[in-house]
Amino acid sequence: MKVITLAEGAGGVASSTLMKEIVFPYLGNDILAELHDGAILDVKNKIAFTTDSYVVSPRFFPGGSIGSLAVSGTVNDLAMTGTIPKYLSAAVIIEEGFEIAELKSILADMQRVANEAGVLFVTGDTKVAPKGKVDGIFINTAGIGNIIDGVNISPKNVKPGMKIIVSGYIGDHGATILAHRHNIKATLESDAAPLNHLTKKMFDASKNIAVLRDPTRGGVAAVLNEIASAANVGIIIEENLLPIRETVKGLADLLGFDPLTLANEGKLIAFVPANDADNVLKAMKDDPNGKDAVIIGETLDKAKGQVGLKTDLGSIRIIEMPQGEIVPRIC
Amino acid sequence: MKVITLAEGAGGVASSTLMKEIVFPYLGNDILAELHDGAILDVKNKIAFTTDSYVVSPRFFPGGSIGSLAVSGTVNDLAMTGTIPKYLSAAVIIEEGFEIAELKSILADMQRVANEAGVLFVTGDTKVAPKGKVDGIFINTAGIGNIIDGVNISPKNVKPGMKIIVSGYIGDHGATILAHRHNIKATLESDAAPLNHLTKKMFDASKNIAVLRDPTRGGVAAVLNEIASAANVGIIIEENLLPIRETVKGLADLLGFDPLTLANEGKLIAFVPANDADNVLKAMKDDPNGKDAVIIGETLDKAKGQVGLKTDLGSIRIIEMPQGEIVPRIC
Repeated sequence: MKVITLAEGAGGVASSTLMKEIVFPYLGNDILAELHDGAILDVKNKIAFTTDSYVVSPRFFPGGSIGSLAVSGTVNDLAMTGTIPKYLSAAVIIEEGFEIAELKSILADMQRVANEAGVLFVTGDTKVAPKGKVDGIFINTAGIGNIIDGVNISPKNVKPGMKIIVSGYIGDHGATILAHRHNIKATLESDAAPLNHLTKKMFDASKNIAVLRDPTRGGVAAVLNEIASAANVGIIIEENLLPIRETVKGLADLLGFDPLTLANEGKLIAFVPANDADNVLKAMKDDPNGKDAVIIGETLDKAKGQVGLKTDLGSIRIIEMPQGEIVPRIC
Repeated sequence: MKVITLAEGAGGVASSTLMKEIVFPYLGNDILAELHDGAILDVKNKIAFTTDSYVVSPRFFPGGSIGSLAVSGTVNDLAMTGTIPKYLSAAVIIEEGFEIAELKSILADMQRVANEAGVLFVTGDTKVAPKGKVDGIFINTAGIGNIIDGVNISPKNVKPGMKIIVSGYIGDHGATILAHRHNIKATLESDAAPLNHLTKKMFDASKNIAVLRDPTRGGVAAVLNEIASAANVGIIIEENLLPIRETVKGLADLLGFDPLTLANEGKLIAFVPANDADNVLKAMKDDPNGKDAVIIGETLDKAKGQVGLKTDLGSIRIIEMPQGEIVPRIC
């Protein structure tokens, strides 16, 4: 008997297979086929529309909570499509017996991040499930916003010779959750943050940005593999250019994780034509969420569909699409 | 210590209090303050945007499933705001170990109802929670659509002397779920259905419809009380005009429920100026989901904020806003 496993929710190969083989045959259509994180809709004025559920455990962690994640995650999905996020929905499923005080803390976090991003909650829903039928609280947010004029984000626009930029230190969110689960004391916090002001500055600098992605579940490894495959290009990144904190490296080593597969909740990866890369990088450094931005590699006209990491020793290691259960309930 | 109880999710007084006293202070703004089921958004072209999570138990029941409910429910929320539903999102949270075959059945139901309604799923999300952390599958759908020109749905438009129309037999969904839970064999099925074609015909007949509501959680009793209160009118309905199946009456009597508080998933209540009522009623009867439509009462310039039921014996019984736990996980 085929059953759903944790891998299907982990953002790697199994998630993609579930989408293509199980969901798409039923719910598929041309718009869903684009597989953007946000749907670009033809309603005279182009708007984007996206949704995500948040089931992160623990609900509160250094640097954020399920509430801040539920806003920044959906805002970021919109921002990655070249959209100015505007309106959000919030739908919560709460366990019977959940403390009101904790709910208030979560709502406060939601509103704080919504203010920071400049978005409004405009509709919502609350369900309560009997004790034991849901673990505390799950939150769904959907979002819509206006697409910036002249922006055209699509993996199809990624060509060989483009620069790959990451907006800052990677793996912080995943490492923070892992440290908490393994009771490891570490001076780490989640990077959860809304990136729409950063992306606005980037598009002001260049309308030629080909793709933006936030490397959440499955991390940088998943995003690079998705784009290499969708754009049919090779990707090479350099180990000595990757911004990874020593604490994250140490924790990942200790627990047997590759930091490239760890989730980020306030970072983005941009594919930018080489001529525009310096301008975009400069614009990013002007934003608090992009101050540590760096070019980490480029796209190639060979090794199509593959992602290589040039190690400090000069060898090339293939970075695979993450498989199976990475870290459950990371977001 | 204050905690969330099942009542907060039941659509009655406690739900309303939770919204006003807990959620609104954090997430509130002028648009959310309208408290429509769908948010009407100013994005040059007016669109509506709504969301709902579905946690119904059992997942399959006579007449539908969590999948058909997840589509018809959100389509209906849009339809009730005078909107042509167009695009839906789907976000599922699935328990580890869930059978693929069952997931397929649910997805098939979703697509069947989406086809019937003429809406597209354009974005989505899947999370998997470890065994025991979610009961099977929870589904969130958000939806957007274009508002029909000239339509202006608001409780503020409800005036004394308007007719109240219900689109067909009430309580079928709630009674079906109750029968299943109590292992009672009954020839009953859920009325789950998308009502957007019905509402389109109604607006073609009259743009003066003041309010439409689908009486889901909390049933007809909740809707009538909400409108009486929001519009500051009295409401009187007549027992001998109420379309309630004998099976539903019998089951409700047996289990101690008032059919007026039982959930419906394919019915609507309309508040219509008396002059337009016959036209609207005629248009409704032309639609399969409105063929049993009847006028059940009217609004009054007295007993403001109250709902009265004129019994078969001629006495008036006050219909209160449902309180506390009615039927958990009804949708």
